[in-house]
Amino acid sequence: MTESTALLTDRYELTMLDAALKAGLHDRECVFEVFARSLPGGRRYGVFAGTGRLLDAIERFRFGDEELTWLRDNEVVSGDALDYLADYRFTGDIRGYREGELYFPGSPLLVVEGSFAESVLLETLILSVLNYDSAVATAAARMVSAARGRPLSEMGSRRTGERSAVAAARAAWIAGFAATSNLEAGREWRIPTMGTAAHAFTLLFDDERQAFQAQIDSLGTGTTLLVDTFAVPTAVRTAVEVAGTGLGAVRIDSGDLHIVVAEVRAQLDSLGATSTRITVTNDLDEFAIAALAASPVNSYGVGTSLVTGSGHPAAGMVYKLVAHRDRGGDWLSVAKKSTAKASVGGSKHAFRRRDTSGVARAEVVRLDTDGVPTATPDERALQVPLIEAGVVRPEWRGPEGTAAAREHHTAVMAELPRDGMRLSQGDPIIPTTYA
Amino acid sequence: MTESTALLTDRYELTMLDAALKAGLHDRECVFEVFARSLPGGRRYGVFAGTGRLLDAIERFRFGDEELTWLRDNEVVSGDALDYLADYRFTGDIRGYREGELYFPGSPLLVVEGSFAESVLLETLILSVLNYDSAVATAAARMVSAARGRPLSEMGSRRTGERSAVAAARAAWIAGFAATSNLEAGREWRIPTMGTAAHAFTLLFDDERQAFQAQIDSLGTGTTLLVDTFAVPTAVRTAVEVAGTGLGAVRIDSGDLHIVVAEVRAQLDSLGATSTRITVTNDLDEFAIAALAASPVNSYGVGTSLVTGSGHPAAGMVYKLVAHRDRGGDWLSVAKKSTAKASVGGSKHAFRRRDTSGVARAEVVRLDTDGVPTATPDERALQVPLIEAGVVRPEWRGPEGTAAAREHHTAVMAELPRDGMRLSQGDPIIPTTYA
Repeated sequence: MTESTALLTDRYELTMLDAALKAGLHDRECVFEVFARSLPGGRRYGVFAGTGRLLDAIERFRFGDEELTWLRDNEVVSGDALDYLADYRFTGDIRGYREGELYFPGSPLLVVEGSFAESVLLETLILSVLNYDSAVATAAARMVSAARGRPLSEMGSRRTGERSAVAAARAAWIAGFAATSNLEAGREWRIPTMGTAAHAFTLLFDDERQAFQAQIDSLGTGTTLLVDTFAVPTAVRTAVEVAGTGLGAVRIDSGDLHIVVAEVRAQLDSLGATSTRITVTNDLDEFAIAALAASPVNSYGVGTSLVTGSGHPAAGMVYKLVAHRDRGGDWLSVAKKSTAKASVGGSKHAFRRRDTSGVARAEVVRLDTDGVPTATPDERALQVPLIEAGVVRPEWRGPEGTAAAREHHTAVMAELPRDGMRLSQGDPIIPTTYA
Repeated sequence: MTESTALLTDRYELTMLDAALKAGLHDRECVFEVFARSLPGGRRYGVFAGTGRLLDAIERFRFGDEELTWLRDNEVVSGDALDYLADYRFTGDIRGYREGELYFPGSPLLVVEGSFAESVLLETLILSVLNYDSAVATAAARMVSAARGRPLSEMGSRRTGERSAVAAARAAWIAGFAATSNLEAGREWRIPTMGTAAHAFTLLFDDERQAFQAQIDSLGTGTTLLVDTFAVPTAVRTAVEVAGTGLGAVRIDSGDLHIVVAEVRAQLDSLGATSTRITVTNDLDEFAIAALAASPVNSYGVGTSLVTGSGHPAAGMVYKLVAHRDRGGDWLSVAKKSTAKASVGGSKHAFRRRDTSGVARAEVVRLDTDGVPTATPDERALQVPLIEAGVVRPEWRGPEGTAAAREHHTAVMAELPRDGMRLSQGDPIIPTTYA
């Protein structure tokens, strides 16, 4: 996709630019920060995701003739602002948490350094991408730990906007899902795709046996047959008759899974199909997955709850001005004082402090004003350069960047205190401290 | 946007097509139906939205070289299926509820008639669009009725995926919102756009007075000044000093709005700014809006809760095969029997029965098999042709179709029994009956 992302933006970003231009302050050097004030729903940690998509989107944040004409015709901004926008591209620096990294309240997830004009324009786009992708990744990580090693497939495309579906598949994969049903996610981000069959396929045929036979003729005996269109025991018997004991898997999409899964396992075993797997897909979330730990389930397919962040579809990240140069050229930390929404001024760096066993113990935030912040021996630096002088670092982009994010996520989950995996509500599992 | 939507799809849609092709049943004439089994969260009605976007997306559901190459390289389907897909376009008929219409459990929202192959492929895309847009429109309609005539602005772009943000702005507008912050929604769907300023704008300046002055210099005294970056009373006084008593509005984004709004109103009045409006934007949902009915608020800005469907971010619509021709050429109703997920077979038409006062009393669903279903004098037909022999009806598309949907929504809300506006959980406000 090469189309412009410039209008995927709130109107006030442009009118603020316009007013700053008129006031002569548009070029004032600024530092903006993305952070979350809290973790929604008593989560113990958040998973940062969206960077790979965001870097592409920032590069495509350019105002072409079409965009400028519309802005002019609709009198959104002045002629001076239109001239500025015509030449706009972000030429500043952005550093941030690696994609797949864990985060906590106050973690300085993205630090955007550039002129006010260049930086303020990106607010809406940055938050749209990060808030959605991180909400899904956070829900996904909890499902992955609840599944205790059993593979999970993302299959929620039909339960979120058609483009968000691609982002959700990507975020879930970064957080440890094994595959997605979404083909565009396979094409664009090289995520493994999977699929079974729908009830409609069975209903198309004159009977279930013909449907199973047709699916096996086309996809082989390793396929997954859907066994709950009519009576499950009949379908399981038919499935093994048609496919033989080498049948890959059966899928169950309804009923009380605790009971049905045990019955199906017993039936498959009695028919000799001992290696045929059972996959379940019935409105699962992390709690339902955890509750099935003792059931002979082999894999899970998760839809609605995953792509809607399991009750928290937006991560609650905000984009705040935290510093700018004053008239004398010195950096000045700034912060609003709004009730219950205060922010901490200053350009920030972040580190994760670990004990001698490598277990995370604190999120340490240091301000630029404390000198050049570096990691102590027991700390790991959390921010990396993402954009330097307007140039996107290639290693965070595309399928390779996405695969790296997935690997990084696995590594940092291993640092999490064991209690952090608990699904119950609580405080963030490690404190955020300002050094 | 002319890009293909063909891969915004679950893999199994394509493998089912492939298997049906091999079995020689791909051309079997079928009827698929979109419906919701229930209204989420004890809602009293749902608002159907997304049609205008969907019709575009279906037209762009074509497999070009890029898509076919990827499918071939990744061995998603056989060569026969690739040949079929290369020529694919939907040539059947789709009728459905008008966009903006109300719906209830079992309402046959979309009826897709075509070959199995042509129709099954559209499942994921249809549900992605309708589930998200209808979730937002339903939440929006409840907010509009809670606001009792005060205007609402949609400003949630940063709290949902960047493309879903455009869809959300459109859905909210159809359901009665007055404007959106999202510029792309303005360009693509001709929805009025609005904006104020962010805290960052105030913080950019050396003091609040300079920031207000700069905004007024750029946008005029009719603008909306954000007054909670520091102390609200100081900001209100400064705002009126700078803008005069003709100041358009002030925005409050934090604090206990019941108290703050009353204080700000009193202060504005005491300063002579009696016509300056107050807009509030602090994590509002339909309940918070309703609770402010007695406060001197002039307008609301709604973000997170709107674009995430106020607790129910997916409408729960499904796409089911309900009939196909049998080998003899006769229509056969089909339905799965899965526990708690059973569906009703047959091609359906729908009507809203109204009493002599014009108040809706029942959702009446009639099957094709009952003869050609037509409306009785006390009924209004709910379905309209959307696509005929593959050709999209132009009146439902683009900005004009969207404006028509908004008008239609206003008209049908007037039919709703008064109790239907209650925000509390309950049963659907009218029953769905199968004639």
